[in-house]
Amino acid sequence: MLNKTMQKLGEERSVIREIFEYGNRRAAEIGRENVYDFSLGNPSVPSPACVREEIDRLLNTLPPEVLHGYTSAAGAPDVRAAVASYIHESFGVPMDANLVYMTCGAAASLTITLNALAEEGDEFIVLTPYFPEYRVFIERAGAVCREVATDARFHIDIAAIEAAINEHTKGILVNSPNNPTGVVYDEEEFVALGKLLKEKSVSRPIFLIADEPYRELTYGKSVPYPMNYYENTILCYSFSKSLSLAGERIGYIAVSPMATNANDIFSAVAGAGRSLGYVCAPALFQRVCAKCLGRSSDIKEYEKNRELLYSALKEYGFTCIEPDGAFYLFVKSPEPDAKAFAERAKKYELLLVPSDSFGVEGYVRISYCVARSTIERSLPAFQKLAKEYFA
Amino acid sequence: MLNKTMQKLGEERSVIREIFEYGNRRAAEIGRENVYDFSLGNPSVPSPACVREEIDRLLNTLPPEVLHGYTSAAGAPDVRAAVASYIHESFGVPMDANLVYMTCGAAASLTITLNALAEEGDEFIVLTPYFPEYRVFIERAGAVCREVATDARFHIDIAAIEAAINEHTKGILVNSPNNPTGVVYDEEEFVALGKLLKEKSVSRPIFLIADEPYRELTYGKSVPYPMNYYENTILCYSFSKSLSLAGERIGYIAVSPMATNANDIFSAVAGAGRSLGYVCAPALFQRVCAKCLGRSSDIKEYEKNRELLYSALKEYGFTCIEPDGAFYLFVKSPEPDAKAFAERAKKYELLLVPSDSFGVEGYVRISYCVARSTIERSLPAFQKLAKEYFA
Repeated sequence: MLNKTMQKLGEERSVIREIFEYGNRRAAEIGRENVYDFSLGNPSVPSPACVREEIDRLLNTLPPEVLHGYTSAAGAPDVRAAVASYIHESFGVPMDANLVYMTCGAAASLTITLNALAEEGDEFIVLTPYFPEYRVFIERAGAVCREVATDARFHIDIAAIEAAINEHTKGILVNSPNNPTGVVYDEEEFVALGKLLKEKSVSRPIFLIADEPYRELTYGKSVPYPMNYYENTILCYSFSKSLSLAGERIGYIAVSPMATNANDIFSAVAGAGRSLGYVCAPALFQRVCAKCLGRSSDIKEYEKNRELLYSALKEYGFTCIEPDGAFYLFVKSPEPDAKAFAERAKKYELLLVPSDSFGVEGYVRISYCVARSTIERSLPAFQKLAKEYFA
Repeated sequence: MLNKTMQKLGEERSVIREIFEYGNRRAAEIGRENVYDFSLGNPSVPSPACVREEIDRLLNTLPPEVLHGYTSAAGAPDVRAAVASYIHESFGVPMDANLVYMTCGAAASLTITLNALAEEGDEFIVLTPYFPEYRVFIERAGAVCREVATDARFHIDIAAIEAAINEHTKGILVNSPNNPTGVVYDEEEFVALGKLLKEKSVSRPIFLIADEPYRELTYGKSVPYPMNYYENTILCYSFSKSLSLAGERIGYIAVSPMATNANDIFSAVAGAGRSLGYVCAPALFQRVCAKCLGRSSDIKEYEKNRELLYSALKEYGFTCIEPDGAFYLFVKSPEPDAKAFAERAKKYELLLVPSDSFGVEGYVRISYCVARSTIERSLPAFQKLAKEYFA
């Protein structure tokens, strides 16, 4: 009587959300301060000052029926123009405001893009480990999610991608800085990827879909702008992390002006947005974000969290790579079954996400976008957990 | 290379949006005050005071990283509880907060509900004339949109619905107060519809999907609450019109607690929301709306617009029914081809929406949610237009 696929998706929820909800229940039982919830990528650092300033300015200058009214489906024209100018000035891409489509955040950017592109039988490549909702979004768009492994350092493995490309390949999703590994891909990786995709775009283009919610969250390493390395690029952006606005659902899609038939791609994006029920992106925050382009929350706070947690976990005996960006540590499970490890961590009220749902086994993701005090108080728990393995 | 259906949807845009964009271009040419744009249902009356008060209160009391952070996918627990209590107190339905799912507005409420229910081969009934995006949403969910005519007064024609129901019928969409006619269905209509759907729900339930963005916008007539007349009801609500927040994308889905397997329906709703990329409803406005339940913008302003425009158009010779709710006049085209009539109206800078895209021929929709002065200044134009037909 119902759509069984949707019912199952709703019952399972995402593993990450499931742990988050468990954390909320546990907090109600034993107190929030006694639960070390590292499950969710919910920014813990306040939005930069420009956000509040701009909210206040808009509330005090625009009549409410204008401020809160519908914008054009693709976004308010001045907002789209501001985003295009920002991309041009920051990354040297001659972005056209008519190729910018404001969205309800990264997930909307991705579902709209995938639905705009996907035809019967298409495949999209994802690089393991990957944000688990990619599979949900790809399959809902009617396409096949094809997993391709990254190398031992979780960087792009060009040969593996080449081997996976076939006549059904419609696109590849890349996410740098990466969730869950924190890896930032190097310029050479984008050069090689662009070259490969160009070679393989024989009968039709293979699209590079760049999921970039973590662009501004890096710790010293620069983040190459994908459009500069491959023409058929669609950038899916979100202000969730950079401006700590995850709950406000605001982002954009930018179609590369160098893409083949860029205007047609944009039309398909607009059509997909329409058919999925995205009437326009939230009006107030469209305007707020247009005035905060390139700004970010104080990422030094995340950097301090990273240092504190990374060095402590290393000291206790855990193995993990030091992340260059985003706010996740990807830690090797000290037993083969990461789920069993995550269950054991729960005994110490440590909520970690096993890597299985990211498409690889044997790791856990630890989101360190939490209060410093949470990390500090969690360290004895991590130490006890470590002793179960490394004593 | 792209999804052609999406590309076509994006190129066509909705007829309503197309006229709205034309109006914007025309306004740039001859001045906003000289264009009489009656195309869009964009509220013209400011939000009630509680909206601004609550925004200010939230900004000044909740830390920004909490206020703007993710909520649970179904919405903040206190917001869902407030909505459930409001439904219980206002309409006598014992609503369960666990059956309330906060959404990004009416279109999201509908697409999520349709995707939750639709299986291969399903049909959904819509009553002509109907909001044209219903067809887009139904077809995107993989189902068939079956049009059923209303009666001469645009009220429910039970016999016509009965004749259209078959083994593929999964649900029926009703919209009262109605867009585009302004009709409010009577209690007896819901009684009869509920009785029919109960009789016809033999092998599986037929769902009543009540699209209710205009519930609070009525001019004296009471609006029956659909759940009280039929158990398998899913209510799709939006705060867009009641609180003049159309651009902020905020509403909810409420699954009737009397529905068969209500919790399974809710799971399917949650799964559909997830797969379409709706991570959570906008966080700030979830909380704002929870404090403004049952409030509305000053609908007397719309009522005055209605009186002014309705009486003038009647005087000039046009034929239309007096609307009981919403903010639309559905006017009979004085020539058989409503598109030709709407084109002729453009000569006088009057932007009207021909009824063809609503599934009936020979009418135009006039949105009177515009500034009073726009209506006043438009009257000579309507009078000139009338003279072309009735002189």
